[in-house]
Amino acid sequence: MGQDTTRRAPIGVFDSGVGGLTVVRALRSALPGEDIVYLGDTARVPYGSKSPRTVERYSLACQQFLLDRGVKLVMIACNTASANALPALTSASPVPVIGAVLPGASTALATTVARHVGVIGTLGTVRSNAYAHAIFARDPGVVLSSLACPLFVPLAEEGWVDDEIAELVARRYLVQLFAKDPAIDTLVLGCTHYPLLRDVIARVARSLAHHEVFVVDSARAMADSAREVLGSSLLSIDNRRTAPGRLDCFATDTSRLDELATRFLGEPITGFELVDL
Amino acid sequence: MGQDTTRRAPIGVFDSGVGGLTVVRALRSALPGEDIVYLGDTARVPYGSKSPRTVERYSLACQQFLLDRGVKLVMIACNTASANALPALTSASPVPVIGAVLPGASTALATTVARHVGVIGTLGTVRSNAYAHAIFARDPGVVLSSLACPLFVPLAEEGWVDDEIAELVARRYLVQLFAKDPAIDTLVLGCTHYPLLRDVIARVARSLAHHEVFVVDSARAMADSAREVLGSSLLSIDNRRTAPGRLDCFATDTSRLDELATRFLGEPITGFELVDL
Repeated sequence: MGQDTTRRAPIGVFDSGVGGLTVVRALRSALPGEDIVYLGDTARVPYGSKSPRTVERYSLACQQFLLDRGVKLVMIACNTASANALPALTSASPVPVIGAVLPGASTALATTVARHVGVIGTLGTVRSNAYAHAIFARDPGVVLSSLACPLFVPLAEEGWVDDEIAELVARRYLVQLFAKDPAIDTLVLGCTHYPLLRDVIARVARSLAHHEVFVVDSARAMADSAREVLGSSLLSIDNRRTAPGRLDCFATDTSRLDELATRFLGEPITGFELVDL
Repeated sequence: MGQDTTRRAPIGVFDSGVGGLTVVRALRSALPGEDIVYLGDTARVPYGSKSPRTVERYSLACQQFLLDRGVKLVMIACNTASANALPALTSASPVPVIGAVLPGASTALATTVARHVGVIGTLGTVRSNAYAHAIFARDPGVVLSSLACPLFVPLAEEGWVDDEIAELVARRYLVQLFAKDPAIDTLVLGCTHYPLLRDVIARVARSLAHHEVFVVDSARAMADSAREVLGSSLLSIDNRRTAPGRLDCFATDTSRLDELATRFLGEPITGFELVDL
């Protein structure tokens, strides 16, 4: 491809399910002119309970699907895929690959003043220690506390994101996190679903900490990272152009997609095309 | 096997995960002297998001594992496996097979006076219409309303089963069910996890209905069905003997097993043996 062709190529995003649409949402806000191809491997969701080898195999298939559509950048919205398959994906890709963990970890390090960071995510992400590895590799002096919050995913999927139940659940979890380390001043949302609960999480964290707590949305951190990568390799299209970019969505199973997708994307979706990997 | 050998053989129970231990719990209460072999296919949980063909293949492997251990009866604790694989499992088994759906459906029909029945379960179970098929085949005149309650599974797994959050979540769901049909007098817990939330579900249902609502616990209905099947084929051991039966547990992945297992079984567990199917 010539450079101009490449510049007009879409950005590829994949996830094990529909949660990765929060990354698409952040991308469309940060880089409104870019075309995007999204793939949700909804037939095999969740990746979190599968072996690293299986996750790697599925992730490579997802990435290949995007590469076959000529993407100029691959974004792994799934934390489990990022934790288990980033090296394999990077070495199999001719274009840059951005994982879900590093951007959030870097933003957290750039943000924390106290150097006390909290990470919340699924059980699989917390167990993988992916954020701990990323953060300690850059600053071994940071105090890191993490906590799995299993109810946040179904709360986000039900759309119960800022009500009495969401508030009580957030309080029940975060009180445990701030009991571990009351000095946390930066909290990483280490799951694609959690940005939907951002407001209630931020409010409860502040009230428990009795000081300001900066919430790092890993979807937004990924979008910032995409802007940097594309800008530095001169692959960014002119995002001042008025026409919004195309969004093409693919999924491996259509169960409950339309209802959930609109919730995560934050705009109406024109539909998913069913694909077999 | 001679009849006496067969009589002393264990009962086999399988599930996609650990939720099926609620069936083991009910069995140990109804038939305390019986030995039990339990298999949780925890590496491939959940079955609900997989294709019927895959569910059938996995279920057959689980059943074969139990048959290889010489069980005299196979119990499918998983609703998805029951809905998708019961015919294949029955025809592949030399011993009786009890699914998760029929016992609960039959108990509901025997219980309801108004002939208005509610069924709650996972999204997969509700979508499969398995309870509707089972109930309408026996009594087409019943009015059936069903509702998926996705938060009940993580609530049960967290052990948040009878507190303010559980009550609010139960109310949020059940108000929708009783809005569909205020005349429901029998509510089927169509998911292995839900018996842990039985108290709060029963209380909230009663307060919304303003009349008595009988809660059918499908785990208990399965245990009653096992007693009948074993009794009628003279395969039941003498359950008046004082020594409690052995319980051997197997799983295909050990992640989070010990914490969850004790919660669902209601007694300390001696541990799981890891197997590869």
